[in-house]
Amino acid sequence: MNKDILRILEELKSGKLDSIAAAQKIEEKFILNHDEFHIDTHRRERLGFDEVIYGKEKTINQLESIIKLYLEKDLRFFCTGLDNLKIDTLTKQFGSNVTFCRKSGTAKNFEYPPCKFKKTVGIITAGSSDAKVAYEAHETLKVLGVAAKTYIDVGVAGIHRFFKYSEDLKKHTVLIVIAGMEGALSSVVGGLFPQPIIAVPTSVGYGTALGGFTPLFAMLTSCANGITVVNIDNGFGAAMAAFRIINCLPEAQNDR
Amino acid sequence: MNKDILRILEELKSGKLDSIAAAQKIEEKFILNHDEFHIDTHRRERLGFDEVIYGKEKTINQLESIIKLYLEKDLRFFCTGLDNLKIDTLTKQFGSNVTFCRKSGTAKNFEYPPCKFKKTVGIITAGSSDAKVAYEAHETLKVLGVAAKTYIDVGVAGIHRFFKYSEDLKKHTVLIVIAGMEGALSSVVGGLFPQPIIAVPTSVGYGTALGGFTPLFAMLTSCANGITVVNIDNGFGAAMAAFRIINCLPEAQNDR
Amino acid sequence: MNKDILRILEELKSGKLDSIAAAQKIEEKFILNHDEFHIDTHRRERLGFDEVIYGKEKTINQLESIIKLYLEKDLRFFCTGLDNLKIDTLTKQFGSNVTFCRKSGTAKNFEYPPCKFKKTVGIITAGSSDAKVAYEAHETLKVLGVAAKTYIDVGVAGIHRFFKYSEDLKKHTVLIVIAGMEGALSSVVGGLFPQPIIAVPTSVGYGTALGGFTPLFAMLTSCANGITVVNIDNGFGAAMAAFRIINCLPEAQNDR
Amino acid sequence: MNKDILRILEELKSGKLDSIAAAQKIEEKFILNHDEFHIDTHRRERLGFDEVIYGKEKTINQLESIIKLYLEKDLRFFCTGLDNLKIDTLTKQFGSNVTFCRKSGTAKNFEYPPCKFKKTVGIITAGSSDAKVAYEAHETLKVLGVAAKTYIDVGVAGIHRFFKYSEDLKKHTVLIVIAGMEGALSSVVGGLFPQPIIAVPTSVGYGTALGGFTPLFAMLTSCANGITVVNIDNGFGAAMAAFRIINCLPEAQNDR
Amino acid sequence: MNKDILRILEELKSGKLDSIAAAQKIEEKFILNHDEFHIDTHRRERLGFDEVIYGKEKTINQLESIIKLYLEKDLRFFCTGLDNLKIDTLTKQFGSNVTFCRKSGTAKNFEYPPCKFKKTVGIITAGSSDAKVAYEAHETLKVLGVAAKTYIDVGVAGIHRFFKYSEDLKKHTVLIVIAGMEGALSSVVGGLFPQPIIAVPTSVGYGTALGGFTPLFAMLTSCANGITVVNIDNGFGAAMAAFRIINCLPEAQNDR
Amino acid sequence: MNKDILRILEELKSGKLDSIAAAQKIEEKFILNHDEFHIDTHRRERLGFDEVIYGKEKTINQLESIIKLYLEKDLRFFCTGLDNLKIDTLTKQFGSNVTFCRKSGTAKNFEYPPCKFKKTVGIITAGSSDAKVAYEAHETLKVLGVAAKTYIDVGVAGIHRFFKYSEDLKKHTVLIVIAGMEGALSSVVGGLFPQPIIAVPTSVGYGTALGGFTPLFAMLTSCANGITVVNIDNGFGAAMAAFRIINCLPEAQNDR
Amino acid sequence: MNKDILRILEELKSGKLDSIAAAQKIEEKFILNHDEFHIDTHRRERLGFDEVIYGKEKTINQLESIIKLYLEKDLRFFCTGLDNLKIDTLTKQFGSNVTFCRKSGTAKNFEYPPCKFKKTVGIITAGSSDAKVAYEAHETLKVLGVAAKTYIDVGVAGIHRFFKYSEDLKKHTVLIVIAGMEGALSSVVGGLFPQPIIAVPTSVGYGTALGGFTPLFAMLTSCANGITVVNIDNGFGAAMAAFRIINCLPEAQNDR
Amino acid sequence: MNKDILRILEELKSGKLDSIAAAQKIEEKFILNHDEFHIDTHRRERLGFDEVIYGKEKTINQLESIIKLYLEKDLRFFCTGLDNLKIDTLTKQFGSNVTFCRKSGTAKNFEYPPCKFKKTVGIITAGSSDAKVAYEAHETLKVLGVAAKTYIDVGVAGIHRFFKYSEDLKKHTVLIVIAGMEGALSSVVGGLFPQPIIAVPTSVGYGTALGGFTPLFAMLTSCANGITVVNIDNGFGAAMAAFRIINCLPEAQNDR
Repeated sequence: MNKDILRILEELKSGKLDSIAAAQKIEEKFILNHDEFHIDTHRRERLGFDEVIYGKEKTINQLESIIKLYLEKDLRFFCTGLDNLKIDTLTKQFGSNVTFCRKSGTAKNFEYPPCKFKKTVGIITAGSSDAKVAYEAHETLKVLGVAAKTYIDVGVAGIHRFFKYSEDLKKHTVLIVIAGMEGALSSVVGGLFPQPIIAVPTSVGYGTALGGFTPLFAMLTSCANGITVVNIDNGFGAAMAAFRIINCLPEAQNDR
Repeated sequence: MNKDILRILEELKSGKLDSIAAAQKIEEKFILNHDEFHIDTHRRERLGFDEVIYGKEKTINQLESIIKLYLEKDLRFFCTGLDNLKIDTLTKQFGSNVTFCRKSGTAKNFEYPPCKFKKTVGIITAGSSDAKVAYEAHETLKVLGVAAKTYIDVGVAGIHRFFKYSEDLKKHTVLIVIAGMEGALSSVVGGLFPQPIIAVPTSVGYGTALGGFTPLFAMLTSCANGITVVNIDNGFGAAMAAFRIINCLPEAQNDR
Repeated sequence: MNKDILRILEELKSGKLDSIAAAQKIEEKFILNHDEFHIDTHRRERLGFDEVIYGKEKTINQLESIIKLYLEKDLRFFCTGLDNLKIDTLTKQFGSNVTFCRKSGTAKNFEYPPCKFKKTVGIITAGSSDAKVAYEAHETLKVLGVAAKTYIDVGVAGIHRFFKYSEDLKKHTVLIVIAGMEGALSSVVGGLFPQPIIAVPTSVGYGTALGGFTPLFAMLTSCANGITVVNIDNGFGAAMAAFRIINCLPEAQNDR
Repeated sequence: MNKDILRILEELKSGKLDSIAAAQKIEEKFILNHDEFHIDTHRRERLGFDEVIYGKEKTINQLESIIKLYLEKDLRFFCTGLDNLKIDTLTKQFGSNVTFCRKSGTAKNFEYPPCKFKKTVGIITAGSSDAKVAYEAHETLKVLGVAAKTYIDVGVAGIHRFFKYSEDLKKHTVLIVIAGMEGALSSVVGGLFPQPIIAVPTSVGYGTALGGFTPLFAMLTSCANGITVVNIDNGFGAAMAAFRIINCLPEAQNDR
Repeated sequence: MNKDILRILEELKSGKLDSIAAAQKIEEKFILNHDEFHIDTHRRERLGFDEVIYGKEKTINQLESIIKLYLEKDLRFFCTGLDNLKIDTLTKQFGSNVTFCRKSGTAKNFEYPPCKFKKTVGIITAGSSDAKVAYEAHETLKVLGVAAKTYIDVGVAGIHRFFKYSEDLKKHTVLIVIAGMEGALSSVVGGLFPQPIIAVPTSVGYGTALGGFTPLFAMLTSCANGITVVNIDNGFGAAMAAFRIINCLPEAQNDR
Repeated sequence: MNKDILRILEELKSGKLDSIAAAQKIEEKFILNHDEFHIDTHRRERLGFDEVIYGKEKTINQLESIIKLYLEKDLRFFCTGLDNLKIDTLTKQFGSNVTFCRKSGTAKNFEYPPCKFKKTVGIITAGSSDAKVAYEAHETLKVLGVAAKTYIDVGVAGIHRFFKYSEDLKKHTVLIVIAGMEGALSSVVGGLFPQPIIAVPTSVGYGTALGGFTPLFAMLTSCANGITVVNIDNGFGAAMAAFRIINCLPEAQNDR
Repeated sequence: MNKDILRILEELKSGKLDSIAAAQKIEEKFILNHDEFHIDTHRRERLGFDEVIYGKEKTINQLESIIKLYLEKDLRFFCTGLDNLKIDTLTKQFGSNVTFCRKSGTAKNFEYPPCKFKKTVGIITAGSSDAKVAYEAHETLKVLGVAAKTYIDVGVAGIHRFFKYSEDLKKHTVLIVIAGMEGALSSVVGGLFPQPIIAVPTSVGYGTALGGFTPLFAMLTSCANGITVVNIDNGFGAAMAAFRIINCLPEAQNDR
Repeated sequence: MNKDILRILEELKSGKLDSIAAAQKIEEKFILNHDEFHIDTHRRERLGFDEVIYGKEKTINQLESIIKLYLEKDLRFFCTGLDNLKIDTLTKQFGSNVTFCRKSGTAKNFEYPPCKFKKTVGIITAGSSDAKVAYEAHETLKVLGVAAKTYIDVGVAGIHRFFKYSEDLKKHTVLIVIAGMEGALSSVVGGLFPQPIIAVPTSVGYGTALGGFTPLFAMLTSCANGITVVNIDNGFGAAMAAFRIINCLPEAQNDR
């Protein structure tokens, strides 16, 4: 149950609020009408996770407005896609209320929830330049209450590095495979492991890497069966997809 | 346990075979050395599913060779990506031993296994022209022992058609969403349902549909979170990805 | 009738000007010969709207020259596509004679005309990042004497947000639908509403959004019939297209 | 009012049908449940036009099923995108009940409605190779009760041919401009005429015409303001867009 | 005859130089061996024009080296493709010996030669944003001794502007047509004028203008016959092509 | 003076025709109104060459109509872009009145005119697979009264083959260079010869030849200055461009 | 020394031929002048290998002419890129003099030379659909006197198949790696082996395999260092590149 | 034998280290476990060369971490792809221990090894703007102990410049050909020289040079046989490929 609604309803019962005021308060919490944003506060109820702000496309001004709104309404938000410049600017204004993470380019105004699932996610990158995407995925999963472990720089050019982690990788319920350049890692992982595999192409590489389109296309046409793919550099999306899987397990449905 | 191995070992025990002959027979079963194919018979053990032949890129001659080989060795195969011409030609030669399905473009030489999982997959297409891709996914899931239901022609241009099935779709553990043209259906589904969603772009459409690249790109950049995508027209791949999810559920691991 | 011409002709009649001077003045008003610009002052008469300067491709120097020219000749101009840097620089020089609008990136040297048409335009965006394009369209329509209403952040990922506005949207004569990423909103709108729909793809999104080409192609191949499309981020063009429609209504032709 | 519903209701009143049978009949008329098609019979009421079948992507078998269904249910359909081969095959089976038009690649099972609107549409092509697209647009408009006139082969290479028709073109409420190769015609038309202009790029041309993408991109980036564009070769879509405009005129709303 | 060689040979004859020194001097003039440049000083003799430095791809350091070299060797150079930053830096060092032109982005260390040909070139641009490319072409022609006239902002959106110059344009032997966006101007010019036409696409425009590829492709697939095209923004190349034509006229061959 | 007009006017003077009949006859000759074609019979007067039919995009039916029309009106036509199938079909019907040429894919209903110009064109191909494009250019020039010589298979892989023809190539006024694959030949020719050079990329090659786009782009970005380019496989366009040059020479203007 | 020249010179010495006849014969052997071909018979001397005819782009007629020419002149040729249709047609005419190989799509009119080099080439394919490209490379190497071994269907999806051949692959001097789809095999091979590696992308795959461009780009941006790449499906080119390496070994230079 | 291992083993023998400490030291040398990097120190042994850091994609922070690690562990590294900004920053911190080279954008912490091979590499560039890529290749070869010579600005536009170096180029065992724009140089070199040729496309050029994709595609579809290609601007990769060839020569295998 949503605690905010409970509190409002109790205030109604106790006479602190009349019905109309209570209805208004509930609506306020769930249909935040702001000039430029329609915050979908029902999403948590409907899909099982919170509103997420995608910070890459928003201007500093838009980010300031929306963060202020959330803080005023006392609502939780998680923001991804922040570069260092945005983090610098926003830290000055909101540093005391919001936690910023440079490694993953994210921000949030709440503590990590306790881990809600027994199942875990393994996050693997081909190179060290792919690290930021992995951290975004890892941070997203922590915010969603999912435990994960990250393995960086284990690509196929030195395939023995990869085999070292084989036993460890078998234990995770879902694998996120992150690679730029030719994106070959997902084919190797897909050929060796039976779990659900979410491949994330990255924009690492130059020339024929095509800003991430070559690993994207390579992962989609992989000779290993049943690999699924998300957008370029989309660590957040991969984590959300992993969450959808973890969350549909019977265990998950009982535990929440 | 693999029954073929058991049978060979029992023949060894009963004296019907000596050790060397038994070893040869086992190797034959698992490392099929043919001139142009290295059939990966370990895959079933490793990943939990059988070898699948992708028929689209193979010539009639190659298909004939590989099917003959499988039939001689008395092994199970499942073949996808067959057009009507290939089915016509192959039916003449193998019609009595192999079952061909024109609607899905597949062939197999065994009965459907019993349904092995309680969890089910919902397969939705935007238009009736996307049907063949849905049937390929459905057929693949049946072969893997997964129950599925297919919903055809429920795209967003007449969005009320889609809402009619809402309740039904909520019951499936995994949703496969198949759409060509602008591929908008996956965004609507992704915004409404919390399950794992595997989107399949199709080559239906002309001009700016770009032979399926427009729905592919649209699905990858969907405003709904956590949608994953497979290659254009790849109904088989979507089914394999759904299988990887169904198969990683605790229930699945106990039941097999 | 054009008032400037009337005034000149009256000055001719009153003896203030002789024929040659009057002819020169008229020509000056209508064929402005400048070194680098041929200002098409007939356009207002011919197409029903004023000259518009597209500011994105012009340098600050070119913009300064053309604005100076217009101010000297006492002619009306409307300028679009100005970024903050250009607005900053031009404001210093022309701030007292020209009105700049940062939200829409536009400038003009005249008051909004009174609303000339009974019919209205509805402007809808999928996300809050699409707002600037919507404001450019809105500003353009106001300059043309067309009333409009803007609805921001009502995309398909939370489709209930969209349905909230259904009744309101039905009242507009023309709908402008603005969306980036996968551009699915125009298909949903096109399937539900019978009005003329002008879709504007935006460059919002990353990776497979292709800088706006994915929503562009998606809108052009929409499963909803009769949707038309303008260039990426072209809020001005969409407004002009809406104006062409509003302007061809019998009402419009009588009222002007 | 829909006549079919009226008839059913009168049969109910007269006792010919009981309530349940009547409800079934109404549902049959409006939610046609067929194995692979969900025919959207509400569309006529909602958008003001009948169901349209896009024949290009459908197989002969699918077309046969859907046409049979429509004929059995005694409903009106209009089908576009038929090549000569499909027309030949379908004519053999349905020739007595369905009218096929080779020039425009269309089929229908009803008479042209009387012209419902005073306003007309002008359809212009740049070359004679663009004719089929123009005929598809013309046929679609006739089916929708809109009068149109087609002007073929009046492109810009011999621009005097175009000027010959200037006076005539001014009289139409909407102009559809169809051009392949470099698509320059829409810029010239857009610069000279104030009406709503719907540009249709065609796949006429070779090499750098890019199968229609060059005129598509050229039309979208036209120096003439307020031109809107539909998909390559999409004469049907252009007609639907013209219909949306004609249909939103006050006159239209009164007359229907 | 090359004057430098003549002078050296006369110094040889007069005893000022011995044979070896003379040979060295001649070689120096014609095979300039520098660490990173092989200056092709034969080109003037062979092709009829001087060495041209393309400044866009070269670093400031490379430009400084090569300009110094030319000044030391007392040779003529013409440099194109200089942005304002490069011109600022180079002006400080070479301002007294080299003439820089910002409008066309060029530099040279010699006076314009007298006009060597009776025939002239007309340079037309569609918009005022295309002006820099026109100035580069004009400057190049002046350096080559060819008279030209530039007509800016006479595009097809207001086609009456274009017709005003018809008589004037007929007098030029070669026409250079410069246009961005949809590049339609070259088709109109090509349909009206019989001269050699060199079309230059520009990077003016956004979205579907594709940085100049849309006008490039449009010009190459023009419905007007016999138009030739050069690279995007390549005003220099268009001038060189015009020079090749002017230069092959009998008159030219006699006059030099 | 056009002889047809002269003849009609003489018939008028002699009383054979009255004024109205004469006017009709003249109009018939110059504004051929056919259902689908507007034949531009003024073109010969305006541009100095005849109407050319581009046969590639036209159907057999369209070609038959237009050829019939020309034959009935007793007018000259030249048709390009005919494949063998079209030539076979048209030969049956028009073989006695029209001359077809398979090597160049052209047809015409008149004798070659006598050579009208002293200047000649050299046509060079890199490979033997480029021959058809060269023959189309050659045939077009012959029809226009221009003498040409064709040099086939002299590409850069064996550059000594090319040098063999150096002296010969110097004598032509214009050079047409035809190459597929990497299109390097035009750079070598452009570096060695001072004449106007028209480069034609061909669709010869596979994979990264991109159906002719690689040589197209290579020719446009050639390191040799002043090369101009036409569309892929456009031998006709190259010949027209050469004709525009030859035709603007003083000699040409006197001789006609 | 070339034996043909030796024989001619001996005939000269013995009086069988006079000088002029001998010169003619030599020229005939080395500068074959045919209407459409300039056979580069010097190539063998210059590069160490014979003329190769690329049959894919040539018509049956062109192939017939060139083969006839070679047979008449009694010269050796090797032809690649023949599909079954061409082989069928040519076999009828030349079956007794020319050897055709369907598996590799090649033809030749001579016996394989003896193996000229101690060093060998290993040819590896990822899938069985890549076999034809491997056979083309193998056949080319045999014709050049280079020993090779082919390993088919050892891709990364079942990476244990690949490791089985590790020891064997180490013995080859050059490795040719052939793969379609995502082309991952070359990265794995490149990371494990120190030899020169020539990667050949193939057109095997669909959708995002982009007809071979995805493996092409993947191989070029491989995380393994020093891999080189040839055109899509270019087995012949890979063999030629391997030959260039084998041929530059000291051994090779001594042995020839 | 690796000297570090030898030294550790000797310390073990002499009692300076016990077995466990020795094992730890060896592991440390060969499996450097750092948070974000898995340094593959086996590579030197396995492939015959040291670890190479690709600096282009790494942040300053990542570069600082990895360089520090290498310096602490006393291991050799070679870093490429550094721009001037990175070199400036890193020089401040590591200037005394690391040698930076601006011309080639590289860094290393060791002396050049003595030249290990008799065979040499020729590096040729088409233009002076391609120089940095050549220097990167040259520097890489020096680090690997391979002698090379660089020839800059010898492209095909002035082909006589190229022929001047013919004799010199024949002496190198491997040729690296570097060209931007249309990339024609590799075809000319490939047609004239029998050695292994590694072509490097560069991003020099604008418009249709496509940032290096045009020379890339041109080199891959070259009419000269057996040319291999690496990624755009990849001087390092070309050097590694040349090293793989030089290193597989018998001489090389004996000498090391």
